Amino acid sequence: MNYTDGTRMIFRERTDVGKAKEIFLGQIKGTEKTETVPASSAIGRVLSTSILAPRNVPHYRRSAMDGFAVRSVELLGASLTNPVMLNVSDEIMEGTCVPVNTGDYVPDDFDAVLMMEDTISIGDMIEIRAQVHPGKNVGEIGEDVRKNELIFNKSHLLRPCDAAVLASLGIVDVRVYAKPVVAIIPTGNDLLPLPGDDVPVPGKTLDINSLMIGKYVEKWGAIARYCDIVPEDKQLIEEAIKANLDTDMMVISGGTSVGERDYVPAVVEKLGTKLVHGVGLSPGKPTALGVADNVPILCMPGYPAAGLVALFAFGKPALRKAGNIPDIPDTKVKATLSGKIMSREGYVSYARVILEGNIAHPLMTAGAGILSSIAKSDGFVIIPENVEGCEEGSEVEVVLIE
Amino acid sequence: MNYTDGTRMIFRERTDVGKAKEIFLGQIKGTEKTETVPASSAIGRVLSTSILAPRNVPHYRRSAMDGFAVRSVELLGASLTNPVMLNVSDEIMEGTCVPVNTGDYVPDDFDAVLMMEDTISIGDMIEIRAQVHPGKNVGEIGEDVRKNELIFNKSHLLRPCDAAVLASLGIVDVRVYAKPVVAIIPTGNDLLPLPGDDVPVPGKTLDINSLMIGKYVEKWGAIARYCDIVPEDKQLIEEAIKANLDTDMMVISGGTSVGERDYVPAVVEKLGTKLVHGVGLSPGKPTALGVADNVPILCMPGYPAAGLVALFAFGKPALRKAGNIPDIPDTKVKATLSGKIMSREGYVSYARVILEGNIAHPLMTAGAGILSSIAKSDGFVIIPENVEGCEEGSEVEVVLIE
Repeated sequence: MNYTDGTRMIFRERTDVGKAKEIFLGQIKGTEKTETVPASSAIGRVLSTSILAPRNVPHYRRSAMDGFAVRSVELLGASLTNPVMLNVSDEIMEGTCVPVNTGDYVPDDFDAVLMMEDTISIGDMIEIRAQVHPGKNVGEIGEDVRKNELIFNKSHLLRPCDAAVLASLGIVDVRVYAKPVVAIIPTGNDLLPLPGDDVPVPGKTLDINSLMIGKYVEKWGAIARYCDIVPEDKQLIEEAIKANLDTDMMVISGGTSVGERDYVPAVVEKLGTKLVHGVGLSPGKPTALGVADNVPILCMPGYPAAGLVALFAFGKPALRKAGNIPDIPDTKVKATLSGKIMSREGYVSYARVILEGNIAHPLMTAGAGILSSIAKSDGFVIIPENVEGCEEGSEVEVVLIE
Repeated sequence: MNYTDGTRMIFRERTDVGKAKEIFLGQIKGTEKTETVPASSAIGRVLSTSILAPRNVPHYRRSAMDGFAVRSVELLGASLTNPVMLNVSDEIMEGTCVPVNTGDYVPDDFDAVLMMEDTISIGDMIEIRAQVHPGKNVGEIGEDVRKNELIFNKSHLLRPCDAAVLASLGIVDVRVYAKPVVAIIPTGNDLLPLPGDDVPVPGKTLDINSLMIGKYVEKWGAIARYCDIVPEDKQLIEEAIKANLDTDMMVISGGTSVGERDYVPAVVEKLGTKLVHGVGLSPGKPTALGVADNVPILCMPGYPAAGLVALFAFGKPALRKAGNIPDIPDTKVKATLSGKIMSREGYVSYARVILEGNIAHPLMTAGAGILSSIAKSDGFVIIPENVEGCEEGSEVEVVLIE
């Protein structure tokens, strides 16, 4: 059994969260891997090329009104005192007009549409008492989208409505960036893999972090690669990292506190660069950030609540940068605090709160090891490092945990 | 061929958006259908029962510090002048202590943990100069979650972090509400089904609305049932609605304008109740809302931009209510308008804008038929009915189209 001899490393380094993020993201290059996928299943994917319209929309001249397609030349001089009569007919001849509804094809012979209201129906004929400009109420070919017009820029994140737009242009496949692959490496001697429906023996803990990380990275647009639990052994941790240098990012949970057992940042330093170890983040201080072989590595604390905060603060923006995925703003709601929130100066604090309408109740158990604080909280109140806590009754912004 | 005889119904009714939504949602009962799914794939699903903790977390007494597990009774009276010496040992005997790291199992014989800093290491022994309370630095069984404690309420929407919480409690399956099934019924004589990579003949339009509706309802938590295109024929529309009375909601696109061809609301009225026809929504005025056999029916305009707005304004909240899915606030960003937005009094206007950093550029083509306005816009500025437009330079909230 390992135990320390009384001389302990103290966890002195504490990089400010903004700086740590800047350093970390600065090492990340967006992927250049691309793939072709059907447009209808490309929602949530990011275009790796811009898209030009391959055809005109509309591809025919269409009526902008319910009424009659006419030849404007035949109505020259029409007036109240000198009305023109046209035959309503499906057969296109001199002196005829064709009934059209909004959106209908306007046959080539005709160059204007009269609104129904501007005509008087008399049997199979209509009487018209005003002349009309050529082109009136006719949507020209390409009025909406012109052939070769830029429709989407490179790096556009495709939405459901965009799938419809692509379909309307006859685009069935699109070229998108490959989803970034994120290796998830749990470390610890006392971890057990899921599923674990039986109560583990005392001292053993289920590896729930991998599931949490995996489900979030999938939600954020990546592919999760779940790795086996790695014991607290430098050699084995090194092997695990080396085995995943083909990924776009690694998230290693556990083994980041400074102590005899905390090998992960040291191994990252050996294989590449340890950029940051210890951040002004509460919970989540023991977070380490590094890079090996151009693969960014987030070493997050093993405690679930601290790990979750580190994942939100560093993992999400890093993954998005690695996958060229545009950053989507967090969902936020305004609320009034029902109690005081304490925070430490010099730390960005992620205080967990329960929302009840417009009231945010601070969770009293803020311990990083307290799993239930995650289940119970609806969101975070993020308190900057230069602010010391929030008073009861103050207006806060709650970032929803989604 | 149909054409009107000069006497036209005028589209007089115009229900205010808030009122229309209230009437529509008032007719919707949340589903009572439930199903059992694996907890790890239940993210985004809604619990149909509350969940109590089936066991304690931690399920063993765990150390809150790095240090030594001790028997407090053996340290009674320890002081600077009267230190106590304990053997550091893995064997549990009188006069021994066990080294523990944070989170480790504290063996039953021991009742307190001394922080390493409060001991002096001398060979295989430690010297202790203060007594300690029973329970000090020991996390008791159930400290985090007590057996039978309420973990999630009924109707809780499961998040990735919740999947981890369930896993830690050994919960492998959960009971959730069945996803609502939404029938998507396109209507129109000139519609062609997708895919359509060839240019359709003049006058024919691709049915892109079904794809747009389907992808949104799936994103919002429902199952899309894509139905065949129904021609503009009352009998056929009636049959299509009847064939989908087993669903939780219908979205019918097209055929809602008041005119000879616009059959859908009339058929809804025949089969059930037409609640609203014509809303103060721009674009999207011809929207109709109804219910038949307890199934809510959204009749949205066929024009894609108007349809999209109706879908966001009425379809999303209706679907969420039908599926007991909690309403998640929209993602909003603040921006400054680079140009004036016009709006009509009496109408809630969804003005489409392009975002460029903190600047929102109004899209000039606001036509409901203009497909490209969807592709180009990043979000909506929603202007209430009692406000007439927004001036250039004003601060607005943009609801992102996601």
